[in-house]
Amino acid sequence: MQALVYENGELEYRSNHNAPALGSDEALIRPTRMGICSTDLEICKGYMGFSGVIGHEFVGVVERSGKKVKNDLTGKRVVGSINCVCGKCDMCRGGLAEHCRDRTVLGISKRDGCFADSFTLPSRNLFEVPDGVDDDHAVFTEPLAAACQILRQLTIEGRPYITVLGDGRLGLLCAQVMSQLNATVRCIGKHPEKLALCEKWGVKHRPLADVGLRGDQDIVVDCTGSADGLTTAMGMVRPRGKILMKTTVAVHQDSKPIDLSPLVINEIEVIGSRCGPFAEALDRMATGKVDVVSLISRRMKLADGVEAMRLAAGPDSVKVLLEP
Amino acid sequence: MQALVYENGELEYRSNHNAPALGSDEALIRPTRMGICSTDLEICKGYMGFSGVIGHEFVGVVERSGKKVKNDLTGKRVVGSINCVCGKCDMCRGGLAEHCRDRTVLGISKRDGCFADSFTLPSRNLFEVPDGVDDDHAVFTEPLAAACQILRQLTIEGRPYITVLGDGRLGLLCAQVMSQLNATVRCIGKHPEKLALCEKWGVKHRPLADVGLRGDQDIVVDCTGSADGLTTAMGMVRPRGKILMKTTVAVHQDSKPIDLSPLVINEIEVIGSRCGPFAEALDRMATGKVDVVSLISRRMKLADGVEAMRLAAGPDSVKVLLEP
Repeated sequence: MQALVYENGELEYRSNHNAPALGSDEALIRPTRMGICSTDLEICKGYMGFSGVIGHEFVGVVERSGKKVKNDLTGKRVVGSINCVCGKCDMCRGGLAEHCRDRTVLGISKRDGCFADSFTLPSRNLFEVPDGVDDDHAVFTEPLAAACQILRQLTIEGRPYITVLGDGRLGLLCAQVMSQLNATVRCIGKHPEKLALCEKWGVKHRPLADVGLRGDQDIVVDCTGSADGLTTAMGMVRPRGKILMKTTVAVHQDSKPIDLSPLVINEIEVIGSRCGPFAEALDRMATGKVDVVSLISRRMKLADGVEAMRLAAGPDSVKVLLEP
Repeated sequence: MQALVYENGELEYRSNHNAPALGSDEALIRPTRMGICSTDLEICKGYMGFSGVIGHEFVGVVERSGKKVKNDLTGKRVVGSINCVCGKCDMCRGGLAEHCRDRTVLGISKRDGCFADSFTLPSRNLFEVPDGVDDDHAVFTEPLAAACQILRQLTIEGRPYITVLGDGRLGLLCAQVMSQLNATVRCIGKHPEKLALCEKWGVKHRPLADVGLRGDQDIVVDCTGSADGLTTAMGMVRPRGKILMKTTVAVHQDSKPIDLSPLVINEIEVIGSRCGPFAEALDRMATGKVDVVSLISRRMKLADGVEAMRLAAGPDSVKVLLEP
């Protein structure tokens, strides 16, 4: 089958990659749309030490189910949670299964990803996509869920000032989600054409170069995908404010040290934020509360995946979608 | 007067330093004991870009009060909050005066410190020391308050596992304070003679080398005073756990970058923690709830302050006190 594989420091398109074996509790899925995320780009810089088929954002159709699958979704359109968990460890038993000690993560850790003709996930990870949500929307379920996760980690009191830092893929989703809160929300970025989307949605926006680090924001969401993001966020947030941290970056020899003393001096809270609720994300799209389609910059074939990854890393792209 | 001055990258004892001018709302204080803190050591490595008389831990006697002082404490034994605030900015008006935008901080930022024959503080910063708290105790009010601050920033649910990381000055205070919670507390350090104090207090303790990074602690308090502390803390805390960050370190050219991705992946919360409640600290000492005197490693004269700072930086010292 076709697959986009990262191995020995190289990203490569393969037309004759081995098809995956189907586990007894798993579903075999044929993706119809796949989305390229900043994490995929970081993985190709060495993040997570991953090796194998990359990719974790998809919508697809279940082709076959393993023998022990209870919720057989064969023939259905699905999206799926990327964390494959053991169900036995302290985290799973304690209600924090997405932090399973023995988990594999689709295209990120110890499990081949979805940038291929087919791939597998445990069937219990899947969510059937409602008819009202087409493929162009459904492929955004995973990143939109990650944006929604912020709402579970914050208590909104009064009418806080919130800055979403970064106008990329995740930043534009977070900006939309946050702007539905009782809050004054602005999105700060570097790309006029991306910030123009905020204008369309009625979300306040400013270029980073025009914004001072005035320590006056109650909450800053770091979606920069850049190692500098935290430093900028620390400069923008008020004392005792909160920074939601969405950015993960591979650390290299030439990475710069960050001065973290503002966290202590200003008693800032930094809250790491990862995966979120799929059902809520699907619901937001079904009810038209979020515009994701405007984020699609390009559609490319899986066979052109290496080039698609290169374009996704460029300043002009928001979401690059892959199709089989 | 005598003073310990950090200027142009050099720490120096001066016998003929200018005495401070007394502001109309200030008290002139003659310190009777002064404590050397890790922040003093960091300042002498360039932290905060400070220049002037160093020192911020003291107990002393008010010698004189300015004309407009309302609570005249002349002749009384006092300790004092180190943050000198404007009373007018958004932080002061919002109940977060210790984060005043225009503050000066005793011996740390834009205000001469207490390692001198005399120094000044706004009179409203002072707390009279109760008779039951002698000078050897009272000089620990500021760092003990900083340890107590953690209790204001945490909600303790169930019976959490808490690790205090670091067996230095602040770590040993935090370990004592935390062990009075309904929690399983351990102190992790590198120095057998310091961990022996934990044994004396009935606080669990282990050498760092014997402890795995198992991601199983609900709360980790970083009191290492070292740039590596956060990395160790991230390895010890469980997913969705909390790290209380007490460590501030000067960042240099040769500082190493820290991989912060575990914060995001494990959705860890990092809470910066600085100054704390003086009244609570005095009360804990008055009621004998904390043993601070065992922390005193040495007593030296202010005239030997440069040597005292050198010794305080060594592995064998806990608290080095200065006397006039």
